[in-house]
Amino acid sequence: MTEQRLTATYWIETAFPLAQAAATMGGEQSTGTFVRVPGETDELREAHAALVEEIVELGEVASPSLPGSGLPKSGDATRRAARVVLSWPMSNFGPSLPNLLATVAGNLSELKAFSGLKLIDLKLPPVFLDRYQGPQFGVAGTRQLTGVYDRPIIGTIIKPSVGLSPEATADQVRGLVEAGVDFIKDDELQSDGPHCPFDARVSAVMRVINDHAERTGKKVMFAANLTGEIDEMLSRHDHVLAEGGTCVMASMNSIGLPAMKVLRAHSQLPIHGHRNGWGMFGRSPAIGMSFVAYQKLWRLAGIDHTHVNGIDNKFCEPNDSVIASARECLTPMFDAPHPGCEVMPVFSSGQSARQAAPTFAALGSVDCMFAAGGGILAHPGGPAAGVRALRQAWDAAVAGVPVADAARDAPELAAALGAFAA
Amino acid sequence: MTEQRLTATYWIETAFPLAQAAATMGGEQSTGTFVRVPGETDELREAHAALVEEIVELGEVASPSLPGSGLPKSGDATRRAARVVLSWPMSNFGPSLPNLLATVAGNLSELKAFSGLKLIDLKLPPVFLDRYQGPQFGVAGTRQLTGVYDRPIIGTIIKPSVGLSPEATADQVRGLVEAGVDFIKDDELQSDGPHCPFDARVSAVMRVINDHAERTGKKVMFAANLTGEIDEMLSRHDHVLAEGGTCVMASMNSIGLPAMKVLRAHSQLPIHGHRNGWGMFGRSPAIGMSFVAYQKLWRLAGIDHTHVNGIDNKFCEPNDSVIASARECLTPMFDAPHPGCEVMPVFSSGQSARQAAPTFAALGSVDCMFAAGGGILAHPGGPAAGVRALRQAWDAAVAGVPVADAARDAPELAAALGAFAA
Repeated sequence: MTEQRLTATYWIETAFPLAQAAATMGGEQSTGTFVRVPGETDELREAHAALVEEIVELGEVASPSLPGSGLPKSGDATRRAARVVLSWPMSNFGPSLPNLLATVAGNLSELKAFSGLKLIDLKLPPVFLDRYQGPQFGVAGTRQLTGVYDRPIIGTIIKPSVGLSPEATADQVRGLVEAGVDFIKDDELQSDGPHCPFDARVSAVMRVINDHAERTGKKVMFAANLTGEIDEMLSRHDHVLAEGGTCVMASMNSIGLPAMKVLRAHSQLPIHGHRNGWGMFGRSPAIGMSFVAYQKLWRLAGIDHTHVNGIDNKFCEPNDSVIASARECLTPMFDAPHPGCEVMPVFSSGQSARQAAPTFAALGSVDCMFAAGGGILAHPGGPAAGVRALRQAWDAAVAGVPVADAARDAPELAAALGAFAA
Repeated sequence: MTEQRLTATYWIETAFPLAQAAATMGGEQSTGTFVRVPGETDELREAHAALVEEIVELGEVASPSLPGSGLPKSGDATRRAARVVLSWPMSNFGPSLPNLLATVAGNLSELKAFSGLKLIDLKLPPVFLDRYQGPQFGVAGTRQLTGVYDRPIIGTIIKPSVGLSPEATADQVRGLVEAGVDFIKDDELQSDGPHCPFDARVSAVMRVINDHAERTGKKVMFAANLTGEIDEMLSRHDHVLAEGGTCVMASMNSIGLPAMKVLRAHSQLPIHGHRNGWGMFGRSPAIGMSFVAYQKLWRLAGIDHTHVNGIDNKFCEPNDSVIASARECLTPMFDAPHPGCEVMPVFSSGQSARQAAPTFAALGSVDCMFAAGGGILAHPGGPAAGVRALRQAWDAAVAGVPVADAARDAPELAAALGAFAA
């Protein structure tokens, strides 16, 4: 029986011969040492060395993307980019995400042989499922809790990011639930600041949401940002649950994978994974980690939703990257019969009725959250018209009707297209 | 009474007027929204907005360091670098490291106005000490446990990184303690892999260390890599303690700040904070976080030692960055009478007797760990001579004697200088 192996794909840039550079990566992250030591036997290397599975040259590079790289002592020093695939035997670290991280994203980004090195993708063997629970609710569970089927969950966010009291937050939520949104989230800057304590905010917001649910039958999902220390997060989760809430939100980079695993084991609610800070990993093409790789770690740890930015967003991320991330969230991480650990991608940032059609075309699915702030609040007909316009835009997209045609019979959509110019 | 504020310093690169760019950063990370919303009152902004404290222009930049940045719609679009200092009222987030992180290192690195944005430094108000314990042992406690005073703690690492069985690890430790090292650490790739389980490894290693301590009175400090899930880390800590061990090691990026806080609260041993993966944050000058800022978060959370690379190291980090990091570890984070939370910097990577004098000159202190692998094992006279040479080199550095002069009366040092050429 072949041992399960873990595979990682990197983009690299180096002036060293590609085979040598790839071997350096594998050595640094497995059995290798700068100076060969007596314990590094052939038998040990055979059992534990990382293997170079593939090297695909991507062309020559004129100048180094990052400072601090070295040149080979002799021979050709043409700088090249390449895609490199390495694999490791699971016996090196076992199915442990923290130790996996030290292996695939540890010291190697500081290696002198490289003027660029970015983790692009990971393929984890299913043995990780023995130890990690993956998403508890995912797409289906989130649909069940919101009662929204066959279309995106229309969401929005509490703004301003910080400064509102619990009562002012609840007032804002009142307007949003009355406008017909399916989902509302805290801003990632708002967790438990002294001016807006978590418990008081959740109690105030849930009174509004529960009241609206009693009157209308529609329970809006509120992602309460419980980011904090571990004991705080667990007790905040319990408060949300006690108040009848249906979602919690945590900033992934702020809490780390082990804390997420603890939260997942404790949680009876979907976990909305906020990726703020991901720009530090993802923005440079030459260093860090793609969101495609990154989100797999968090899905396994237990998130149910995660942010992917949006088409034509107001941040710096290009559309192809947004779409690659979003599609990945809906792509199984493991082959059947194992669970795929799919999670709901959350589109946000500058989203309006204009982005429904291109988002559907690129994603090929309505299994997403589509969150708009200004795209709802700034609609000329008011927030309720803003929500209706978004639903009309998605209905048109799914029906294959051009949005301009659909707008002829949908005044809210027509107004949105006028207000939110391309 | 003025409220305590938190201050963050950034390096930025932008084609927008600097004052406007800095205001965008502050707005995104406090009260601002892309579209001004009704709740954003003047009163709320006054109480909660981030303030731009300082802008220092650093000169013009020919082309954008990172892709995806935008240009101003009108006016001058000269691209400039600058240092920008922002401050936040503590009432926005309270003394919470996870929420601090979402504020100072969250979405802002994805802002379109910037073609570079890196967190350079943080100044945390002492109110954080109400909630975080800081280092338990630090420099003084580590010296007490090792019995090493008035000179650096001479350390080394178990190599190969992975593949040794518990017994093979203990055999290697036997040679190292007999050679006279003060400190030995696991490799960051080795925690609890199936071929070398943590508990068995620690038991085997501690038998050797305890036996040596009984015979010689010298208890070598072994930093056992307990990186893993939270319950695993706590139980591994207890095993180290039960076996008479005096240190545990955790990979900071792998576990996250909340897990470190839990480990610190539980620990009766110094925590060796391994920074593997920091290259993803630190290597690009245009994105991420300096180690000067980064290590403050972890010191507050409770580490006692942390890695700073070494002078003329084998990775890509330049010496000025290494020294800035190391000095910062010994610089108080808070003014007296608050504790300074100083931690021991750990020099490593390609270190030998040659680096003692320049390291001492730059650090101005012997309060450090000085770790060598090949610099000990590959000494022509064997590992014991390697350790002696390192101590001779540091003695000379502290006495102000040029290393070549000192080598005349110190054959091990002379041999080291011959073997480890510049």
